Amino acid sequence: MNAEIISIGTELLMGHIVNTNTAFLCRKLAEMGIDVYHTSVVGDNPSRLAKAINQAAVRSDIIITTGGLGPTVDDITIESIAALIGKKLILNKTVLKDIKDYFKFRKVHFPSDNIRQALIPEDTKWIRNRVGTAPGLIADYRQKVIVCLPGPPRELEAMFLNDVVSYIARKHTTGCRIRSRTIKLTGIPESLVNNKVKDFLHLKPPTTVGIYAKLGQVELKIMSKASGEREARRAIARIEKKIYGRLKDYIFGCDDETLEGAVGKMLIARKKTIAAAESCTGGLLASRLTDVNGSSKYFIMGLVAYSNEVKKNILCVDPETLKKYGAVSRQVASEMATGIKLLAGADIGIGITGIAGPSGGTKSKPVGLVYAAVAIQNKVIMRELRFRGSRDEIKFQTSQAVLEMIRKI
Amino acid sequence: MNAEIISIGTELLMGHIVNTNTAFLCRKLAEMGIDVYHTSVVGDNPSRLAKAINQAAVRSDIIITTGGLGPTVDDITIESIAALIGKKLILNKTVLKDIKDYFKFRKVHFPSDNIRQALIPEDTKWIRNRVGTAPGLIADYRQKVIVCLPGPPRELEAMFLNDVVSYIARKHTTGCRIRSRTIKLTGIPESLVNNKVKDFLHLKPPTTVGIYAKLGQVELKIMSKASGEREARRAIARIEKKIYGRLKDYIFGCDDETLEGAVGKMLIARKKTIAAAESCTGGLLASRLTDVNGSSKYFIMGLVAYSNEVKKNILCVDPETLKKYGAVSRQVASEMATGIKLLAGADIGIGITGIAGPSGGTKSKPVGLVYAAVAIQNKVIMRELRFRGSRDEIKFQTSQAVLEMIRKI
Repeated sequence: MNAEIISIGTELLMGHIVNTNTAFLCRKLAEMGIDVYHTSVVGDNPSRLAKAINQAAVRSDIIITTGGLGPTVDDITIESIAALIGKKLILNKTVLKDIKDYFKFRKVHFPSDNIRQALIPEDTKWIRNRVGTAPGLIADYRQKVIVCLPGPPRELEAMFLNDVVSYIARKHTTGCRIRSRTIKLTGIPESLVNNKVKDFLHLKPPTTVGIYAKLGQVELKIMSKASGEREARRAIARIEKKIYGRLKDYIFGCDDETLEGAVGKMLIARKKTIAAAESCTGGLLASRLTDVNGSSKYFIMGLVAYSNEVKKNILCVDPETLKKYGAVSRQVASEMATGIKLLAGADIGIGITGIAGPSGGTKSKPVGLVYAAVAIQNKVIMRELRFRGSRDEIKFQTSQAVLEMIRKI
Repeated sequence: MNAEIISIGTELLMGHIVNTNTAFLCRKLAEMGIDVYHTSVVGDNPSRLAKAINQAAVRSDIIITTGGLGPTVDDITIESIAALIGKKLILNKTVLKDIKDYFKFRKVHFPSDNIRQALIPEDTKWIRNRVGTAPGLIADYRQKVIVCLPGPPRELEAMFLNDVVSYIARKHTTGCRIRSRTIKLTGIPESLVNNKVKDFLHLKPPTTVGIYAKLGQVELKIMSKASGEREARRAIARIEKKIYGRLKDYIFGCDDETLEGAVGKMLIARKKTIAAAESCTGGLLASRLTDVNGSSKYFIMGLVAYSNEVKKNILCVDPETLKKYGAVSRQVASEMATGIKLLAGADIGIGITGIAGPSGGTKSKPVGLVYAAVAIQNKVIMRELRFRGSRDEIKFQTSQAVLEMIRKI
């Protein structure tokens, strides 16, 4: 059982966008035990698209196309597929109603161009788009299956996970499963993680471990291929346990878990509330903390205090402290943390001040210098942090380090 | 003159990594005036690789492979190319010395596996790797050129820019250049933009216009191919002017400009300051506003007011209003906007309240319902917004809509 992905869109061939859809589909297909031997990209060109699909139909069991389902004349996927499988295009009233409802809900006038998206090849299964307007397709063709998905990643992902996975699983059972587990670490450099798990990184299939460095985060991916899901999971669990043994302190979660989610869970479990006063991160910490569903249970208040006036008047930072040590200082961070804790009546108060750059740095206080403080009970825990990178990279790394401080405390 | 890219690597087909190399090469080739009609990915499999290269050699003038040049037995590109062009592999002493020097410099013991990387097809031009160990190749094959580049992006990019661009330019004069300009719009759906510029979307090369929908944003990309850079730019300017004429109100910037950057520029030009009180967006608006370098000039304060207590005690929202209309209401948004404006002493105050989901929605107040208010002078401008999507998508779309409100005002 193998699948092939054909991405359609001149914007991909021009390099305007990076093909993340193919990576997503490859990952999901691998998890289902379906091999992918080829992926390709063609432009918005009917004859090249038809050639690509015909070639795929010879060598692959499942052909998945992405993109080219939009309302404009550039979007040629449906016409091409209809011609290929020899079916007429028919206006589907259910689809049309879906599309009209989409605009109605948003209180936007229905643009007549979008009618095109309701044209479906006769007797062909279509997939409802719960996120956007273009429906997907699942068509049988010469004992093969052709699946057409829209280009926008959130539409494609929702459709694939909700509808395509179960369709393929029903039709085709494969003899093996690939499972993976990603262990996420922070507060430790890649090279140190590498050293600690060197023996695992040399493992040969069926079970392998890879290391991936991201901004403010290192990930270890364990993959296992086995005849059944249980065997694969068991092989992963064995290695996972050993990795935990060696790196426990730095691991904050697995797979889709986020650092803010892990912090949120701990706050809920311990019934603690939190409030944050941010200067250089400009609300990014609050935004990440509130990305978590249910965060209103523990997140009381965030304050972005850019000016000294706000720091003094609202957070009650002592004007003397500001004068003596400057806004970017250990002392001000600490007073911001206690100030917001009091103001919000929270259990934990966070204070962050620093220089996100690119301008504003000096010799003694360079761009990337950040002071972070966590006020809890009667203590204030302080850290001086130093980062490199662009403005958003410094903001992100700071938020990452502060979340890790909260997690550790 | 056209090129085709073949990426080699099972890790791409497993979806472990996203193919950014192809996007990079496509972009650079487009700038050189070289068309790309196909890109594909094959695994570390000699027969499938040979088939892919043979197919490419029929339809494309330049074939660029990426990846598969590493020191392990999985890396099959060089052997496959040598077999294809009928050349013996010979140990190249210069390359071997380069590789040994690489390890010496890093004070790492030379691993004998890496000797493989010094095997070069006889009489074939190789490219020095200034960043890593694997050399690249440029081979002539049936009037076509095959270029092999390593997989790690930094190595590939350095080699392509330093060596391949000039080689291709010397051998093949395309006599033309491609330039592009991206016009960014918000506050208008894709289909409406499509309607307004339909005539441009049908343009045939050398100058074309494409439309791309992103979350809360639509982009129009004008591309022009001409014999010189000036002609290309002039052709773009002509269309750009017409697009501005039709869609001026919705255009906030070009190319790398962001909406928050555009808003920042306007605030600086008009010497206005701003403060934001956010509920459902949880600090995302403040974070985006402060992503702009120099935003401390106009951004005074942000407040994330999740709880009713904060809304009452700090923003002075009337408890009666909260009781009568609920926290997610037009009235509360308005009082939040005036409250933060007063508290911060800013010229403009923003109030946002809504339901970001996925939980917390009701029939009358569904997930995705947001009220946004902008207080300026003695007025408050209000909008009721409705979005679909995940929690972060609703947060992002809200911040986008509010930035657009500020820009318009």
